[in-house]
Amino acid sequence: MIETLASSGCHGGRQSFHAHQSRITGTPMRFGLFVPAHSGPRPVLWCLAGLTCTEETFAIKAGAQRFAADHGLILVTPDTSPRNHAGGDAADDGSYDLGQGAGFWLDATQAPWAPNYRMASWLLDEMPEVLLQLAPADLARQSIMGHSMGGHGALTLALKHPKRFRSVSAFAPICAPSEVPWGEKAFGAYLGDDRAAWAAHDACALIAGGKRIDEILVDQGMADQFLEAQLRPERLEAACARAGITLRLRRRAGYDHGYWFIQTFIEDHIAFHAERLA
Amino acid sequence: MIETLASSGCHGGRQSFHAHQSRITGTPMRFGLFVPAHSGPRPVLWCLAGLTCTEETFAIKAGAQRFAADHGLILVTPDTSPRNHAGGDAADDGSYDLGQGAGFWLDATQAPWAPNYRMASWLLDEMPEVLLQLAPADLARQSIMGHSMGGHGALTLALKHPKRFRSVSAFAPICAPSEVPWGEKAFGAYLGDDRAAWAAHDACALIAGGKRIDEILVDQGMADQFLEAQLRPERLEAACARAGITLRLRRRAGYDHGYWFIQTFIEDHIAFHAERLA
Repeated sequence: MIETLASSGCHGGRQSFHAHQSRITGTPMRFGLFVPAHSGPRPVLWCLAGLTCTEETFAIKAGAQRFAADHGLILVTPDTSPRNHAGGDAADDGSYDLGQGAGFWLDATQAPWAPNYRMASWLLDEMPEVLLQLAPADLARQSIMGHSMGGHGALTLALKHPKRFRSVSAFAPICAPSEVPWGEKAFGAYLGDDRAAWAAHDACALIAGGKRIDEILVDQGMADQFLEAQLRPERLEAACARAGITLRLRRRAGYDHGYWFIQTFIEDHIAFHAERLA
Repeated sequence: MIETLASSGCHGGRQSFHAHQSRITGTPMRFGLFVPAHSGPRPVLWCLAGLTCTEETFAIKAGAQRFAADHGLILVTPDTSPRNHAGGDAADDGSYDLGQGAGFWLDATQAPWAPNYRMASWLLDEMPEVLLQLAPADLARQSIMGHSMGGHGALTLALKHPKRFRSVSAFAPICAPSEVPWGEKAFGAYLGDDRAAWAAHDACALIAGGKRIDEILVDQGMADQFLEAQLRPERLEAACARAGITLRLRRRAGYDHGYWFIQTFIEDHIAFHAERLA
């Protein structure tokens, strides 16, 4: 059963928020959904958010619906982790960068995270069925994008599932999580100390290991407070150059890590995906 | 002294949030500010929010900056009441529709509200000076808009200050507050039991009493949960018809009271003001 938490007219279509009891995470899981007014099956763009975010963050702050409406795209904004909503019993950690709000878009293998923190399987194996119950989704046409931790999620899932996602883009993604504090902390907790297991969840390592997609679109603010310590776009640039992947990495002077930056350039990202989903 | 709480690049300009110690309310007061990239003095659009909102609500949810940037407008999003931020000592009420978050854009005359709840004077007499310290505002070109309680504020302030504001628009305004529960509760508390004092803060009563402006733009969702009990656009329609004020009241089927509705039609409102501020 899918619960509708809210539903409102928006740009000729509808923006809604939902919860369902996930068989994969074992908890209630929430997501936002924008369905444009167009008739007939519509392509789907998955929008993955970053640390501390919920299903509402990208939906409320990115300003994507206006352009999704223009192009006839369905937008899905999943929550970033299992949570202790009514009926939920997910592990947590006091810090903002581990546990609730910080699922890192992967399936954890370590205690206490493994039973619930299965964000990749939830997104890939369960959410498409859930979506079909709510919207005229054309699952033959899916793309994925994300911000920060969600940019990491979009890049790694697109690299591992190139036939599922026609295109991928990111705002300020964590490009090489195995090599930065956010990723080291999260991967250590979710995947354990054996760094060999981390490579399957690191965009740069996946490319170095042979995964290929045609192209990647990234916007990165040059006033981003996390640029040097956590994001490392130059690693992605080097990995793509060696692999022959077309990376359009646009360095944006004066922009920081937040949604004021995202809303400024969202129109381009939506158009990029729409063209590849046509 | 004006404190900068946050500042980010946004659509080529900057979105920032500030606090200052108001001599009028006697408390710290907050507001959001968008300044476009254009050089030289820019016109100002004051954006007044509704019940429960803060200086962040319209700034984050309306999607107005994209169009303000296109047209070169400065946007100011004031908080909706005095609050007990550090150094603040404002009266409050447990309910959402009186006290903090519910200033109703007027100067209270009754205890315990009168010392701090002076939102009209703060906006009209103090905020312009504050704004000039932060942005190249052209105060000869000001317009005003608002949502719900903020729509009431925009309409009443524009009617009382027709030389200051070149244009006024509203989303789902409280058109006749003297006659609906929200207004009766707030006006009774802030202005006292003598309803004669209420007319100066009621758009329909102001028009009936002879106040005149050329035109008003209003969008109203027809699925708005507050339409019949609180908003009463038909009263404004009748008042404008009798007074010869051009009211463009656009009834929007399927839209509710929230910001999904506002973001859908914000482009039109910004363009409407920009044309009159040119």
